[in-house]
Amino acid sequence: MEALLTHGPVLIIGTGLLGTSIALRLRRGGVVVHLQDSSPVAAGLAHDLDAGSLEPVDNPAIVVVAVPPDVTARVVARALTEFPSAVVTDVASVKATVADALASHPQVSRYVGSHPMAGRERSGAIAADADLFVGRPWVIAATSTTDPQAVKVIRSLATDMGAAVVTMSPENHDHAVAVVSHVPQLMSSLVAATLESESAYSLELAGQGLRDVTRIAHSDPMLWTSIVNGNRNEIARVLRGLYERLGLLVDALESDASQTSNTGLHIVSGVLADGNTGVSRIPGKHGGAPAYYAEVIVLVPDKPGELGRLFSEIGDIGINIEDFSLEHSAAQSVGRALVMVEPAKAVDLESGLSKRGWRVVTSSGK
Amino acid sequence: MEALLTHGPVLIIGTGLLGTSIALRLRRGGVVVHLQDSSPVAAGLAHDLDAGSLEPVDNPAIVVVAVPPDVTARVVARALTEFPSAVVTDVASVKATVADALASHPQVSRYVGSHPMAGRERSGAIAADADLFVGRPWVIAATSTTDPQAVKVIRSLATDMGAAVVTMSPENHDHAVAVVSHVPQLMSSLVAATLESESAYSLELAGQGLRDVTRIAHSDPMLWTSIVNGNRNEIARVLRGLYERLGLLVDALESDASQTSNTGLHIVSGVLADGNTGVSRIPGKHGGAPAYYAEVIVLVPDKPGELGRLFSEIGDIGINIEDFSLEHSAAQSVGRALVMVEPAKAVDLESGLSKRGWRVVTSSGK
Repeated sequence: MEALLTHGPVLIIGTGLLGTSIALRLRRGGVVVHLQDSSPVAAGLAHDLDAGSLEPVDNPAIVVVAVPPDVTARVVARALTEFPSAVVTDVASVKATVADALASHPQVSRYVGSHPMAGRERSGAIAADADLFVGRPWVIAATSTTDPQAVKVIRSLATDMGAAVVTMSPENHDHAVAVVSHVPQLMSSLVAATLESESAYSLELAGQGLRDVTRIAHSDPMLWTSIVNGNRNEIARVLRGLYERLGLLVDALESDASQTSNTGLHIVSGVLADGNTGVSRIPGKHGGAPAYYAEVIVLVPDKPGELGRLFSEIGDIGINIEDFSLEHSAAQSVGRALVMVEPAKAVDLESGLSKRGWRVVTSSGK
Repeated sequence: MEALLTHGPVLIIGTGLLGTSIALRLRRGGVVVHLQDSSPVAAGLAHDLDAGSLEPVDNPAIVVVAVPPDVTARVVARALTEFPSAVVTDVASVKATVADALASHPQVSRYVGSHPMAGRERSGAIAADADLFVGRPWVIAATSTTDPQAVKVIRSLATDMGAAVVTMSPENHDHAVAVVSHVPQLMSSLVAATLESESAYSLELAGQGLRDVTRIAHSDPMLWTSIVNGNRNEIARVLRGLYERLGLLVDALESDASQTSNTGLHIVSGVLADGNTGVSRIPGKHGGAPAYYAEVIVLVPDKPGELGRLFSEIGDIGINIEDFSLEHSAAQSVGRALVMVEPAKAVDLESGLSKRGWRVVTSSGK
């Protein structure tokens, strides 16, 4: 049993993926957990998974409201009234509308808005995991009226989950998730939607770039329609700017090349250059400045054990792998493994692998 | 030395990344290669890399024109005239404008348009590699006037490079690359450009989705401006449709939620659902139908040797890794390794890894 900062009892209202995952982690640390869900079946499932007790609780220290965004404020308000000494938090992916709805509640100082950013493409207690939040950001969106002691309690809860706490105002949170999550989701889906009517033949030319850009287009439309709807104002603000810039780009491409090519090319190159600047601002591992590793490309036969052999031989050479991905293209029996290492190590890695018989494609210095 | 299908001598005109890579592969197979470049420095560098001879050649069997797209047609035309028995190919990323410009050349039947899709974010002979084309698509864009014997020669050349030959008309090629490559590039750059003015604080919430969507926004603006300009008509056609759909989406999000939410939500969910359909059409490994693997998520401490240990232990368990990626978020000392295996193997992998002390997060069935 691992010692936790959190003291129970904790009441979890809503035993879906997030609520049950929090419950499982608390239970593993020996904290008393009570479960509640409007669906007895859902609550029973979480109970069967050993996530906590179904008995009512009189005086919980913490209430975690893990219900859909559109009913979150109502359930939080009820919990604040019902449990007069509990700190109440929620896990909704939008924060300003919830905070606004609760602003006039007499007990609002005990409410601390949370957004643990661990959503995957799955849902329900059955997908829950005590380690779901490890290594993920957990936003705490307190306001000027929030009791600092209550914030401390929820900060401890997030830390117990293995998450990295980020504090921001509800408004800044909603803007930030529009930019880093909701808008990229919609743009990925829009790009993927253009593939719907293409010939299978065209799609054989798909490379890693298209695969990366469209990976999250696999997301659940129902879930995401509700996420987007919950943050529609902030999303619209960001998307409107993007739409206008795309309009300039399309106009430039459609205009007669001979007449307007200079202006047109300027618009194209401006988008590409600003994309460079923007992407370089995404933080790297460990939250530092974006790290640039040397990329060593190794051709890996698509046979059992080859990737394992590659990794164990890199281990033998004694070089730490900073990042790794596999590139595929259609119809091939060989994969390209992209091994990212510290730039100073690239030459040793290349020569070590070549000596062991691997085919290494030139590394880039980036 | 590996036996090749190609018979030389081969003249490479343009000793950049692609030309020099082709030269190196041919040389490794014992084919006689001559090099030519308008820049003596570039030609000399390729020569120093042992890519071929700088002596003039009288009667090459094949001429590979690997110069920028805007001068490709002119250089191909000259080569057809100068070498009356050579098969001439090019490597330009757009094919219809080159084919149109050459249509009236009396010797056009000996010209076979190529597009080896191996561009990386690097350039120049110094980045060249004999294995650059292994496992990548190589489009052969012949027309009705092309000599079938000439097509056979270029098909052999592409096969010698380890590439997967795809044949299509110049027009179909240009449309296909607009859809699978050029439009995704521009959309990735547009999304990344929205990050330019965001606070560093917001960007701490960036997850793997944003990283995937914007990865290719790192591409070289100069190179891509010229690629986009070369295929502006086809790109504009695809982007115009995307622009119109984005307009509907922004309007829906901006409209009053209480009044039009049903129609608005329908537009949002339609984009997300069509994205699902589109992305599922991208072919998987081996060119078959897209494969769905089970994803097993393993928490990996960020210490030297841990990834290597993970892979060698997966090897011990005896399960083949179909795909693999690493997920990062800021400020954490633990990574999430996403290991994709055949669905029937997932349970064995999870229990095997857990037994060996790894922390495994629930796998999804997808």
